[in-house]
Amino acid sequence: MNARMLAETKEMIGTIQPPSEIWRTRAYLRLDELTKPRGSLGRLEDVAAQIIAIREEEFPGVSGKAVYVFAADHGIAIEGVSAYPREVTRQMVMNFLAGGAAINVLARLHHALLHVVDIGVDGDFERAPGLLHHKVARGSRNMLHEAAMSEEEMLLALRVGVQLAGQAAMTGQLILAIGEMGIGNTTAASVITCALTGASSALATGRGTGVSDAQHVYKIQIVESIMARHFLAQTHPLEILRCGGGLEIAAMTGMILAAAHHRRLIIIDGFISTAAAAIAVAIEPAARGYLFAGHRSEEPGHQSLLDRLQLQPLLSLGMRLGEGTGAVLAMPVLEAALCLYTQMATFASAGVSGESA
Amino acid sequence: MNARMLAETKEMIGTIQPPSEIWRTRAYLRLDELTKPRGSLGRLEDVAAQIIAIREEEFPGVSGKAVYVFAADHGIAIEGVSAYPREVTRQMVMNFLAGGAAINVLARLHHALLHVVDIGVDGDFERAPGLLHHKVARGSRNMLHEAAMSEEEMLLALRVGVQLAGQAAMTGQLILAIGEMGIGNTTAASVITCALTGASSALATGRGTGVSDAQHVYKIQIVESIMARHFLAQTHPLEILRCGGGLEIAAMTGMILAAAHHRRLIIIDGFISTAAAAIAVAIEPAARGYLFAGHRSEEPGHQSLLDRLQLQPLLSLGMRLGEGTGAVLAMPVLEAALCLYTQMATFASAGVSGESA
Repeated sequence: MNARMLAETKEMIGTIQPPSEIWRTRAYLRLDELTKPRGSLGRLEDVAAQIIAIREEEFPGVSGKAVYVFAADHGIAIEGVSAYPREVTRQMVMNFLAGGAAINVLARLHHALLHVVDIGVDGDFERAPGLLHHKVARGSRNMLHEAAMSEEEMLLALRVGVQLAGQAAMTGQLILAIGEMGIGNTTAASVITCALTGASSALATGRGTGVSDAQHVYKIQIVESIMARHFLAQTHPLEILRCGGGLEIAAMTGMILAAAHHRRLIIIDGFISTAAAAIAVAIEPAARGYLFAGHRSEEPGHQSLLDRLQLQPLLSLGMRLGEGTGAVLAMPVLEAALCLYTQMATFASAGVSGESA
Repeated sequence: MNARMLAETKEMIGTIQPPSEIWRTRAYLRLDELTKPRGSLGRLEDVAAQIIAIREEEFPGVSGKAVYVFAADHGIAIEGVSAYPREVTRQMVMNFLAGGAAINVLARLHHALLHVVDIGVDGDFERAPGLLHHKVARGSRNMLHEAAMSEEEMLLALRVGVQLAGQAAMTGQLILAIGEMGIGNTTAASVITCALTGASSALATGRGTGVSDAQHVYKIQIVESIMARHFLAQTHPLEILRCGGGLEIAAMTGMILAAAHHRRLIIIDGFISTAAAAIAVAIEPAARGYLFAGHRSEEPGHQSLLDRLQLQPLLSLGMRLGEGTGAVLAMPVLEAALCLYTQMATFASAGVSGESA
């Protein structure tokens, strides 16, 4: 079972190609013909060129936009690393389904389909219309004492992400925003950051939902202990994910890899989804070219991961909420870049004089 | 005539009140009840509180959005301070009317009404459906040798901005983005920056549409000469506007003051519209609370003006196009802030546990 899942996932990963440099070059040539001073759209020009390089089309339309929120509980939460109790994961899933959370508001505003995925919440959802039921376990294990997931749990969660990305591609979604909900998951992201980048636990560990000074010091110590337990030697990214991740992080990793395979635009959100992206890119570097960093989170470890991925966030609004909120907020930037590219007149077509000699 | 116009404008300005601190405080209290960790929406929370303080309403709706692009020519353009010939101002107005410019694309994407105003283009627009005809003169004068405008020209241009803001308010526009088109106008903005903030001409003078190194040095010298000609002593902001501004800058100044009077949300764009905002706030400091800086332009003087206004831009995408593009791109950020504020569930209503004790 595990061997077959691993082989299938590896086969999909093996097909990922980087975006086309030929199409990127062609896109920059066209950008210089549009009625604006050369380069004056700044990063929007780079975003447009990247979209063209991903899609390998002259004029891609902005078709569907979707946001996936993966929810899971974390064994480490029992150690008191969060300002909120564990049951908030389940309560917030109910809030997503009722339409009252921040991500609901933003998805409505920007016309993005919102998908809420139970990948590992410690709670039952019997009357929960709209929820995608993919529970692998009732939360991850306490990584202070054992690996966060068994190999099978990790592979099952990865596969859910892969399959959902496939469905999104099949139903014509162009832009996929990726977010999460899980009390305790900034601790997992800090562990992944330390293990992947070599950052110290003090640098990679922030206040998450807003713990006190004393809790913050304690959280850093917890991360330190987890590092000593699992990561004394350099470790394969899948093993980092298994020992230090979580079910929602595994599912996001699978979705990112499969969305790259399907040549979709992937907007990652904050610290946790960027940790999933960093795992994905460590597994297959060609996936990097499909990623857009929606925003710069207030979590200090986020910057280490963005540096590692060589990604510059599109927005920087001091947010630290998760749920995919920073990713969905950046959707209009991608749409603007693409619409400018496809809809602006050229100097020739508009009869506008170019630069003086 | 001039005395009456000046008196009318001054009367309107005298009625401008700052946003309500009582409503701002109330807004922050509500923000802490919404289902998210406290402060986790970052600057969106400040934007939401500012909107509530401006509107003095419990739940303002996002009603209309409009962008005004004021076009004018500049006498200083004859000195060769731009990479583009003077006729590009008129050609770009035709491009706006045909729907092919960057601002057309962004206004369509974000459902903002686009108004193109001829406030001083050196050209005729006989067959130009959709253009708002408010030509005060065929461009400003060469400020190297005389004031850019007569007092009457300046007051007429100001009044156009005031009247258009009144119409926008009357037709229910909540958000007004303000942009411009005018070959040569970064030179005027540099002069205003030096005169208002005391910045050196080297610091306040950038490459505009993209002049060469040699042209840039020459442009700095031109700004220096203009400063020596008009601004040896400290000068009243209206006199800075008259001598060193332009017709579109005067109209934008009028629109900003009147939009503050009508308690609208004003999004300024890049260097030129921020120069108009800096003049407006120098005239009436209470107008500052109605301003949102859409983005950080690549023009070096823009930062001096933003510092002066104590405004932090919402976006930073390396743009330097004008036309209101950076302002319209920021509209979704204001809408997101307001929708989150009005639509999110509270901890109590959603049955979500608060922070642990």
